[in-house]
Amino acid sequence: MAYPTAVQSLIDAFRLFPGIGAVTAERLAFHVLRDGRARDLARAIDRAVKEARRCQVCGNVSEADPCRLCSDESRDRSLLAVVEEPRHVEALENAGVYRGSYHVLMGALNPADGTEASHLGLESLLGRLKSGIVEEVILATDPDAEGEATAQLVLEAIETLGDSAPRVSRLARGLPAGGAIEYLHKGILEDALNGRRELRLRPGRSGG
Amino acid sequence: MAYPTAVQSLIDAFRLFPGIGAVTAERLAFHVLRDGRARDLARAIDRAVKEARRCQVCGNVSEADPCRLCSDESRDRSLLAVVEEPRHVEALENAGVYRGSYHVLMGALNPADGTEASHLGLESLLGRLKSGIVEEVILATDPDAEGEATAQLVLEAIETLGDSAPRVSRLARGLPAGGAIEYLHKGILEDALNGRRELRLRPGRSGG
Repeated sequence: MAYPTAVQSLIDAFRLFPGIGAVTAERLAFHVLRDGRARDLARAIDRAVKEARRCQVCGNVSEADPCRLCSDESRDRSLLAVVEEPRHVEALENAGVYRGSYHVLMGALNPADGTEASHLGLESLLGRLKSGIVEEVILATDPDAEGEATAQLVLEAIETLGDSAPRVSRLARGLPAGGAIEYLHKGILEDALNGRRELRLRPGRSGG
Repeated sequence: MAYPTAVQSLIDAFRLFPGIGAVTAERLAFHVLRDGRARDLARAIDRAVKEARRCQVCGNVSEADPCRLCSDESRDRSLLAVVEEPRHVEALENAGVYRGSYHVLMGALNPADGTEASHLGLESLLGRLKSGIVEEVILATDPDAEGEATAQLVLEAIETLGDSAPRVSRLARGLPAGGAIEYLHKGILEDALNGRRELRLRPGRSGG
């Protein structure tokens, strides 16, 4: 007994999202059929796609473009922290220990849940680096498997820049492995920024 | 740093779905912003709401209304199995051990994940029972916590019918507790149907 086409299409559409498996996709689709408020999601998606701005410089979600941080002349633009998500920017800003600029990937590499390299907008990061203003990229991804894989991916992409590549560092493993940046206190974030270590580039290696 | 309104609205819309917490809702919303295919979900929701039929008799998703099973004159309409989901109908049909009719709740009671009694369409079930054709309701929900809570909810709703209530039975606990109906083999389903036990009604008790 197959589902009607429209129901199967809805299940398939949910399955395209990271972390949504077959059983969860069915449960979400059935919820659409039984709860009228679920239609709000269709409206919210359309509105977000139309209205939600992402800063064309750093990729963060933002009311303005460029965003407040990218427009702030007092930030140190020679320093660029690459983070996974907007709340990681928030965590570093709230800690008050970083005055450089950001690049927000909007996710971490996780093929198992459907987040692939192509989702992370690395071309836009490389475009920024080609301007030559950035002297050091700090890989500030989470200290977990996805964050490490993402850091490696970004490192390999930067290596394709060859001699024009900036220095690349990784936040020190003062971060507790397996944790999540937004839950750490200021002291840990400060230690991690101060203890960052430079990575050895292999210029010309093809990126991943 | 709050999210732009359209992004926050999108996160809020995802959170209305059962089993979607704050972190997952953010991850799904960010995916909409970074992957153009995510817009397909908005189209799929609109299409499913417009086109996907639910059988007005049994509540199952269906191409036709009434559905194939509800239109089948050879089914025993004195017997009504209440199941959680369409694939539970499929499992019982594939086992070939049941010839009665069905009522599909499209979910199980699970306040923690947002599925409430109001989602399960019990008024429609009671409407069917008031016709007097059904002599026995078989509570064929999963043998897990949500299924047991759902069975209890349906039992209490039927008790509000007083003297006109049909007999109510529950599938025998030949079903392995904690399991899920769609993964069981025919023998277990057959044992459970044959061993079903009648529940003692307390007519007039107010429903849950």
